[in-house]
Amino acid sequence: MKGVKVMKVYADNAATTKMSKTAIDAMVACMNENFGNPSSLYSIGQRAKEALDDARARAAKCLGADSGEILFTGGGSEADNQALLTAAKLGAAQGKKHMISTKFEHHAILHTLAKLEKEGFEVKLLDVHENGLVRPDEVAAALRPDTALVSVMYANNELGTVQPISEIGRICREKGVLFHTDAVQAVGHVKIDVKAQNIDMLSLAGHKFHGPKGVGLLYARKGIRLTNLIEGGAQEGGKRAGTENVQGIVAMVAALEEAVANIDAYTARVTPLRDRLIAGLEQIPHSILNGDREHRLPATVNFCFEGIEGESLLLMLDDKGISASSGSACTSGSLDPSHVLLAIGRPHDVAHGSLRLSLGDDITEEQVDYLIKSVKEVVEYLRGMSPLWRDMCAGKKPFILK
Amino acid sequence: MKGVKVMKVYADNAATTKMSKTAIDAMVACMNENFGNPSSLYSIGQRAKEALDDARARAAKCLGADSGEILFTGGGSEADNQALLTAAKLGAAQGKKHMISTKFEHHAILHTLAKLEKEGFEVKLLDVHENGLVRPDEVAAALRPDTALVSVMYANNELGTVQPISEIGRICREKGVLFHTDAVQAVGHVKIDVKAQNIDMLSLAGHKFHGPKGVGLLYARKGIRLTNLIEGGAQEGGKRAGTENVQGIVAMVAALEEAVANIDAYTARVTPLRDRLIAGLEQIPHSILNGDREHRLPATVNFCFEGIEGESLLLMLDDKGISASSGSACTSGSLDPSHVLLAIGRPHDVAHGSLRLSLGDDITEEQVDYLIKSVKEVVEYLRGMSPLWRDMCAGKKPFILK
Repeated sequence: MKGVKVMKVYADNAATTKMSKTAIDAMVACMNENFGNPSSLYSIGQRAKEALDDARARAAKCLGADSGEILFTGGGSEADNQALLTAAKLGAAQGKKHMISTKFEHHAILHTLAKLEKEGFEVKLLDVHENGLVRPDEVAAALRPDTALVSVMYANNELGTVQPISEIGRICREKGVLFHTDAVQAVGHVKIDVKAQNIDMLSLAGHKFHGPKGVGLLYARKGIRLTNLIEGGAQEGGKRAGTENVQGIVAMVAALEEAVANIDAYTARVTPLRDRLIAGLEQIPHSILNGDREHRLPATVNFCFEGIEGESLLLMLDDKGISASSGSACTSGSLDPSHVLLAIGRPHDVAHGSLRLSLGDDITEEQVDYLIKSVKEVVEYLRGMSPLWRDMCAGKKPFILK
Repeated sequence: MKGVKVMKVYADNAATTKMSKTAIDAMVACMNENFGNPSSLYSIGQRAKEALDDARARAAKCLGADSGEILFTGGGSEADNQALLTAAKLGAAQGKKHMISTKFEHHAILHTLAKLEKEGFEVKLLDVHENGLVRPDEVAAALRPDTALVSVMYANNELGTVQPISEIGRICREKGVLFHTDAVQAVGHVKIDVKAQNIDMLSLAGHKFHGPKGVGLLYARKGIRLTNLIEGGAQEGGKRAGTENVQGIVAMVAALEEAVANIDAYTARVTPLRDRLIAGLEQIPHSILNGDREHRLPATVNFCFEGIEGESLLLMLDDKGISASSGSACTSGSLDPSHVLLAIGRPHDVAHGSLRLSLGDDITEEQVDYLIKSVKEVVEYLRGMSPLWRDMCAGKKPFILK
């Protein structure tokens, strides 16, 4: 590929985003000027406490919550873990040991549920349908008098499909069942209002909307008594010990406000480019868009290409200056096909050949066309070397995708 | 106090330090240039992974550990919690449910032990003696065949006393008992070598040595199978889920290296100033240095002044530009006297009038003299208004301190 123009396209914003200038500036100002410990009585400490209180109020406003309902954590996974343990403890105290979630949740949810299962909870994982959506009627049907929690992710991290959270929220509220949503992929990308949507608990992570890594938050509706994951000092209302990551929290909230304020403009600008990308990739034979076309994050696309391996695809795209992923970053060490693609019914062979492209808010039409051209070239090249593909072309094995 | 010169002295470095320029620069460079997700396959992700691997190797070197023995966490409290839960799980698997710690540990230890006690563990909290030191012979005497863990803090966060960790380590290793130390206050301030000192697990927090808040690490000797506190993705060898706080980790390790490299110069420069401060404060009648004079962090001083309230002292010192603390920042919301001062035998009334001054590495003689002069003035002023003090002067109540 000597002499070929290489364009840089970072198309893995669902794995992590680059911090915005606003967020970095907020962080640097905090580190330089506001370094006190918020638990200290003197002015330097109290200034840090004010910065923290201010960040909490602003974060709450972005979600339609109250300040006292925001617990800052070390990230989305921690928030997910704490939400589930809280529901388990509250449920167990009332003799409710049944939990409902879905087959395509993030591992922070699935692994915590597996741990709770070992401790005597009964976990029902709902099917996800081929369109990558959970059905509210199936949530309703699964509810039992002893259900302690429903946890359904807001937007799936691999597919980008956006779930019918308001409907699920309404159903849970009517039945008085706690409802948690892992909104790590959704916050800053779609409009969220925890009160209007009857969400009892919600997790988010700063680095998914141009904030820093290593900081997140758990929204928990007033009256929900959180269970500590980390014991110790009296920080965060006694519900999460440890000196607060003030600079990270301040930067995260700056990024959150920016993302929420720009959400209409972002959606209007990026959605047509996402659809242009989908239309372009659909031109590749024996390919399929994974997940619903409409109920989808503005910037996330996921495809399967028959006859190839996702990993080789990624490495060759990297050579072309394109950063993309196959499944989620959190499981990239694994050779197993994505549990999400299996959950929506893709066979193993097909699931192996997946590609997730998650565009940034600064994506251009030129970059989208470069993505389409590059993916086409690489898929063609890899199929040329694939014994499976040759067998399918020779009629020895059937094509699965049209 | 109009017209009086106010000098600024930040003397609460044990609560939190100001980030060094080295640490801030490392953080900013990482946020701007190295924003990838370390779990991603493409070059931007792999660069982040290399930064993380590099930080891990460098952190290990600072402690005398191997790279694979370092787990990055969201802070010192999280590391403490995970160390204790790990020991509990390993112990329970062998039928060992006895744990030894001390009465003056940080609440991250004490509260986690209290939780384990509820789960059926037997916890023995060793006395701390008037000099603020744990006695190795008492650790040895407390060991039982079913002891799962000994956890003794390296340096006490309030007193600044440095414990005989090498001796305790040797005793535990000889008996084959796991030994953890909460070294949050010690790392970067005294020389530590986990292998030479027979330390099995060690916790630290970045913000105590001019690194960022919200990031820490747990050293765990090879062969110790850690129990997860946070379940989910496969980050940190599967032992701590969640996208790594790359920018925070890189900045923390930059600060750690700087602190460790400068430890001799720091100790040589600061220790005489600390002793000057002690000598000056001892001139105040009915005052006492809390904790051993010799086995002490180079920059931490703790005093009790009879007849006054620590909180008023702090607020008046703040007016004079001095940031100081009474007890640890983590418990500052509480009106109870410090559990540490009670543990070393100070009566309630005396414990209430405590002051911790923890100097920065840039402290000057002029600042120390200003501290002495200001504390003297404020103690005198507060005693003038104190009914308790008046009663003592009138012989209606006895003085406790000489």
